[in-house]
Amino acid sequence: MKLNIAVLPGDGIGPEVIAQAEKVLKAIAMEYNHVFTFQHALVGASAIEKTNNPLPEETIDICEKADAILFGAIGNAAFDLDPYAKIRPEQGLLRLRKSLGLYTNIRPVIAYDDLLNKSSLKKKQIANTNILIYRELTGGIYFGEKKLSEDGNTASDICEYTRFEVERIAHLAFKAAQSRKRKLTLVDKANALESSRLWRRVVQELATQYPNIRLNFMYIDNAAMELIMNPKQFDVILTENMFGDILSEEASVIVGSIGLLASASLGDKHAMFEPIHGAYSKAANRGIANPIAAILAAAMLLDHFGLDDEAALVREGVDKSLKLHITTPDLNTKYDNITTTKVGDFIEDFINNPDETNLN
Amino acid sequence: MKLNIAVLPGDGIGPEVIAQAEKVLKAIAMEYNHVFTFQHALVGASAIEKTNNPLPEETIDICEKADAILFGAIGNAAFDLDPYAKIRPEQGLLRLRKSLGLYTNIRPVIAYDDLLNKSSLKKKQIANTNILIYRELTGGIYFGEKKLSEDGNTASDICEYTRFEVERIAHLAFKAAQSRKRKLTLVDKANALESSRLWRRVVQELATQYPNIRLNFMYIDNAAMELIMNPKQFDVILTENMFGDILSEEASVIVGSIGLLASASLGDKHAMFEPIHGAYSKAANRGIANPIAAILAAAMLLDHFGLDDEAALVREGVDKSLKLHITTPDLNTKYDNITTTKVGDFIEDFINNPDETNLN
Ligand SMILES: CC(C)[C@H](C(=O)O)[C@@H](O)C(=O)O
Ligand SMILES: CC(C)[C@H](C(=O)O)[C@@H](O)C(=O)O
Repeated sequence: MKLNIAVLPGDGIGPEVIAQAEKVLKAIAMEYNHVFTFQHALVGASAIEKTNNPLPEETIDICEKADAILFGAIGNAAFDLDPYAKIRPEQGLLRLRKSLGLYTNIRPVIAYDDLLNKSSLKKKQIANTNILIYRELTGGIYFGEKKLSEDGNTASDICEYTRFEVERIAHLAFKAAQSRKRKLTLVDKANALESSRLWRRVVQELATQYPNIRLNFMYIDNAAMELIMNPKQFDVILTENMFGDILSEEASVIVGSIGLLASASLGDKHAMFEPIHGAYSKAANRGIANPIAAILAAAMLLDHFGLDDEAALVREGVDKSLKLHITTPDLNTKYDNITTTKVGDFIEDFINNPDETNLN
Repeated sequence: MKLNIAVLPGDGIGPEVIAQAEKVLKAIAMEYNHVFTFQHALVGASAIEKTNNPLPEETIDICEKADAILFGAIGNAAFDLDPYAKIRPEQGLLRLRKSLGLYTNIRPVIAYDDLLNKSSLKKKQIANTNILIYRELTGGIYFGEKKLSEDGNTASDICEYTRFEVERIAHLAFKAAQSRKRKLTLVDKANALESSRLWRRVVQELATQYPNIRLNFMYIDNAAMELIMNPKQFDVILTENMFGDILSEEASVIVGSIGLLASASLGDKHAMFEPIHGAYSKAANRGIANPIAAILAAAMLLDHFGLDDEAALVREGVDKSLKLHITTPDLNTKYDNITTTKVGDFIEDFINNPDETNLN
């Protein structure tokens, strides 16, 4: 298969982890005779630095022409501390999602047997957890009109949703549930928000088309508790943009490190894959960033094109690295000298030679 | 001291747990020669049933005249499943907060030594956790304009904040931090929301008035993770209405049960005290509702009037009940026949006779 992949490493640890994901994809291409080409482009703070624009035209252009996008992370501490900045790194990511129409963000949360004791949660609490979060990604309060009064003393954001926006992602979530445990949980705040009541109505209506799915509803505050108290009750979670942001980052505690969670952002025409973690500028260039989330994002990219064996091989490599403790310090491994690159190298070697790889 | 207390038991388990809190307050009044009078009023689904109004005029009136309000919980399953209802139980609570100007909601999250093994989190994770959440309660997306298009296909909510609203609660949070570990964490979503950037600016400015406070900023998605990964990093958390709702319910996993968390809602003229849990209609009238949150709400009421010894005695009673496993089934106690009323009775007996109370 020929795939033209746009690579947007972004800021902070983005470039380091994406380099490992790219390496893994190259190994897969070699092993399976695919032709993957990679085109790099700027986004975020590094794009602002060079072009004064968090999402240069050229980047949009490269992304639009690509078959898929591999995205790192954006943001840095200076911007985080400056709530006055008008041009911001995050605009790069948000505008990209919007302009490519990436309305569905899928975040799998799977507890690894080998990591059960790394989690803050008790083992019995999390063993066998397997959740798929469907987060709406181009609507809601992120994209509604924002206002700041002239005197700077009043600020507002609008959270708006249309039936159309809810329906298109809800169908995908119902379908995903059909091939899993057939349970769908809509998370909203219908006791306080008009937009949440719209979600609840539309999803209730669609449910009649999926009679074999058990549908339930949960308020976001309650879901934030239940996700920790009893994560195994969930199969597919469907939710709006902001709630999905919160729940999916929270869910990383189940897996043991946010450095392990990847996501796919899908639209009708485009597909983007990224780790869910941020740019963590503090950790940049120290070799300590966990590349697994980025590598699993690459696996999701392979899934997306039906390259099932290839994706499975990448995941096997990841599993093996975890089993052998070839992991970065966030997972507190036995070895204290395993860098970002070493983890990538290990998985690359595994792909080149699945039967022989061991700690070296 | 003479106190005129408005009691709004509300729906579901509200009346059962509030009855225990009232009993405890009566025991305190007896023991310390106070005169507490209690005036009951309707709110929520039970008010809708009787008056078609979730917050009858009479209830507002009673609350306005009272020195303090003891609130149970509102809502029921039928309304939760009906996103079309125009009159809703929650409006009772939300309008009450707004009309009494209760802009500061304070939620303490304290890990009990005796319950460390009840939490989903590992012991070492949570031991000694002591967090105070300051949640803004009368602004933000709960109270901004709500719209539903005529065809019912577009819905929106506005999240608006003014400098004034941020300042008044921020000062209180800074001051609270001064008498604690001197750390304040503002939780917001300043990388996506204009209203959050206003929060960050205002709090940054005020910080110059509190030079001995370590101030840091955290995005809500990150905070939802950090609260579980490393709860001990927090001292006072300050946040807007919706984020506070989510974080404080999530924080209940640290304590082991949401049936243990109480809150105070304060304004310039009025003060209301309530458990943070909901109405759980499913659990109603079965004697299984944990009254501790309501009883601790009563303790916060005593705090509010400077009745420190009285509040301490109530808390001692609560501690003793936990130590002796006189607790409802949510805490999986040794005994399987401890009802809501029994827990209340135990604490009442303890107050009447602190030195002699034991399991009977
Ligand atoms: C960087 C930020 C705007 C972004 C979001 O909130 O969507 C991030 O947290 C994410 O989840 O991808
Ligand atoms: C009932 C609901 C509207 C309320 C809220 O979201 O404020 C509740 O969850 C709370 O936290 O008191």
